[in-house]
Amino acid sequence: MTSVALPSAGFGAGADVTYAKLSNGLQIVVIPDHRAPVVTHMVWYEVGASDEPRGTSGIAHFLEHLMFKGTNKIAPGDFSKIVARNGGQDNAFTTQDATAYFQRVAKERLPLVMEMEADRMANLRLLEEDVLNERQVILEERRSRVDNDPGSLLSEQMQAALFLSHPYGIPVIGWQHEMEKLSREDALSFYKTYYTPNNAVLVVAGDVEGDAVVKLAESTFGKLKPTANPPKRTRTIEPEAIAARRVVLRDGRAAKATFSRNYLTPSYTTAKPREAEAMEMLSAILGSSGTGRIYKKLVAEERKAASAGAWFSGTGLDYGRFGVYAVPAGETPLESIETSMDTVIAEVQENGVTQAELDRVRNASIADIVYDADNQTNLARTYGWALVTGRTIEDVKSREARLMAVTLDDIKQAARSYLDIRRSVTGYLLPDPKHVAAATKKATVPSAGDTIR
Amino acid sequence: MTSVALPSAGFGAGADVTYAKLSNGLQIVVIPDHRAPVVTHMVWYEVGASDEPRGTSGIAHFLEHLMFKGTNKIAPGDFSKIVARNGGQDNAFTTQDATAYFQRVAKERLPLVMEMEADRMANLRLLEEDVLNERQVILEERRSRVDNDPGSLLSEQMQAALFLSHPYGIPVIGWQHEMEKLSREDALSFYKTYYTPNNAVLVVAGDVEGDAVVKLAESTFGKLKPTANPPKRTRTIEPEAIAARRVVLRDGRAAKATFSRNYLTPSYTTAKPREAEAMEMLSAILGSSGTGRIYKKLVAEERKAASAGAWFSGTGLDYGRFGVYAVPAGETPLESIETSMDTVIAEVQENGVTQAELDRVRNASIADIVYDADNQTNLARTYGWALVTGRTIEDVKSREARLMAVTLDDIKQAARSYLDIRRSVTGYLLPDPKHVAAATKKATVPSAGDTIR
Repeated sequence: MTSVALPSAGFGAGADVTYAKLSNGLQIVVIPDHRAPVVTHMVWYEVGASDEPRGTSGIAHFLEHLMFKGTNKIAPGDFSKIVARNGGQDNAFTTQDATAYFQRVAKERLPLVMEMEADRMANLRLLEEDVLNERQVILEERRSRVDNDPGSLLSEQMQAALFLSHPYGIPVIGWQHEMEKLSREDALSFYKTYYTPNNAVLVVAGDVEGDAVVKLAESTFGKLKPTANPPKRTRTIEPEAIAARRVVLRDGRAAKATFSRNYLTPSYTTAKPREAEAMEMLSAILGSSGTGRIYKKLVAEERKAASAGAWFSGTGLDYGRFGVYAVPAGETPLESIETSMDTVIAEVQENGVTQAELDRVRNASIADIVYDADNQTNLARTYGWALVTGRTIEDVKSREARLMAVTLDDIKQAARSYLDIRRSVTGYLLPDPKHVAAATKKATVPSAGDTIR
Repeated sequence: MTSVALPSAGFGAGADVTYAKLSNGLQIVVIPDHRAPVVTHMVWYEVGASDEPRGTSGIAHFLEHLMFKGTNKIAPGDFSKIVARNGGQDNAFTTQDATAYFQRVAKERLPLVMEMEADRMANLRLLEEDVLNERQVILEERRSRVDNDPGSLLSEQMQAALFLSHPYGIPVIGWQHEMEKLSREDALSFYKTYYTPNNAVLVVAGDVEGDAVVKLAESTFGKLKPTANPPKRTRTIEPEAIAARRVVLRDGRAAKATFSRNYLTPSYTTAKPREAEAMEMLSAILGSSGTGRIYKKLVAEERKAASAGAWFSGTGLDYGRFGVYAVPAGETPLESIETSMDTVIAEVQENGVTQAELDRVRNASIADIVYDADNQTNLARTYGWALVTGRTIEDVKSREARLMAVTLDDIKQAARSYLDIRRSVTGYLLPDPKHVAAATKKATVPSAGDTIR
């Protein structure tokens, strides 16, 4: 076990972050935040949907649900009840690259939740009946979140068309026909392969001190042995993007036609220096509501769109995505929206952006860093996410400096390199009373699946 | 070892096919054909590109090349030379579902090629240097066949967009960036997993008798032990197709704009009775040159297209594809071509086809069966292909009867079920001097890669 207190630098107030590693391989990050006597306790596993064995899509998320089922000490379904009885809240989430479990509790309860989280890291018990019941829950979650939402269905299809080889093309929730076959054995095999202290990161933010938390972790998680050597996360990589793709989804349940386009980009982990930061700045310059170029042209000036914008998703382990979208005003055809969007993009590729634009969005981003630091959950998430996607605490702390280093030329280069139509999938969502696109047309029953986990 | 002579039924003259299985699991099919003193000798392995480990695309085809490198008895590169010196020809091919090696020799040479083929089934020797050299050959094959041919590049991209989950979306030749890393170990691992008598089918067609061939096989292949238990071929299956996809490839090297569309269908192995036969008949009714509906409308009547047609590829283990295409006449935009194509398809979905049309294409298909039986290589291929894709000798023999059973309603149903735009990828190839789509722009050097293997 080694423990190092890192000096605060850049990430808001009080970020005197402690990093430690137990001898069983568990990494620990402690972020003191003394404004209230509460703590956020998160355990991150370096495994996500993109690490699933072929043909078992959804197993990472299914296992996340099943982690609430119980252990030798905790009866099936009692985990969240115990947290609630102690005045806390808990939840979990699964992404392509990571799976995380968290509780927010009064600081006196930290030993309790640590004990419980360490327990289920090693001692999960799954009854066949619970597994079958929970499978219905995740299937229902898919129905309500994806199959009953044409916009989500289109996003899923666009993602599948964007990634020709990399598993980001497979939805985190899973393909329905594969989810239907997920078994207790699949879940336990995934658990045994990836849920081990040497594949986890403990993040504690709140009214605590680094050394005390590390000591506490030593006495709980520290008792666990490493139980597996998780395989290196070598995912298939994309062939060079050479052909623009389009996806059209017609669905009578769609309220409005929608235009969207996603471009394949690198992520913060894989980009060259300043590239990801430049795309983030560009997405704000193009996409901010009210002040962004897309809004100004499509909504304010041409009055073609009711809303429009852009975003950059750069947190993936392997790839990022840059998105633009617009919802037409009145009956404007999507083709006309697309022409205007293409004009905005061509303009920024040709002439870049202005220093005033860059300053504006950069100031806003730096303000966001400060606001994020005020939110304990965001703090914990930011550090946890960085560590499970190949970045470091220093990367988090240097974020402001990295944003300051972005130049106008970086932005123009990023627009030219990555907003290339050959790297893109364009999606049209078209309301069409003749079609219901969903695989499953059953009525939705609200369920536990509607929470984030 | 069991050996059964099957009565001739339906597949041309002289198809008194013998089927046998050796105790090491090798299946044997013998098709007597006494018109000339020659034999076609094929060994089929029940493994193809769709069985490759993730991230090693191209390894099935790479191994097929490396099988010509040598064994303990045959010096590297001598295999084909020995066949040629004995007056024969040899070659091999790899597909998504199967890999096959074949020789055509004078019948006296059958023992020789059997001995050689049995030898390399068990005793392949690969020198690191030969592997590295051969990797350059397959990379060159990719450059010359795919990267330098915009039409092939578009097909590859369309296939990748058609299959969201199933490995048919990965090209048989491999993605270049994965091919560049294929190693001797990858090849030997694939060889050891799949090249074993219990995963192979021997097909001999020619001036031979069943019993004699089985005896000969017993004395050559029969000496081999089964060396592996190849994993069951469970590939990921496709989610329900819900959104039409499009791919646009711009490339200055394209001589002409081209419209094409592929629909996802079942294959002969996976279709319900008469469905695949119905699609085959439909593809001929729509697609025959000169007499098909597409030709008549787009080329003869509207004069929009210089050529146009349709095809059905139904031989896959898991899925088939139905394709339509057209090359515009003069400057006809592809959008106009597409509108006419949609009209032809909607018409057949609405009203079906006529008995006269069905009779015409069915008679042509039955004539083809007879012609195929006249070609020894086709005979051997037809039986070998059936056996490695989950069909039987009886399936081959009943082909004529199955075609006769197709009804007008079967065809209308197939058109309605499968020529559904949501199951499709539409491709536009657009000549555009500003773009060269290929990943690699190196000049082509003609090489051994230009042969079928």
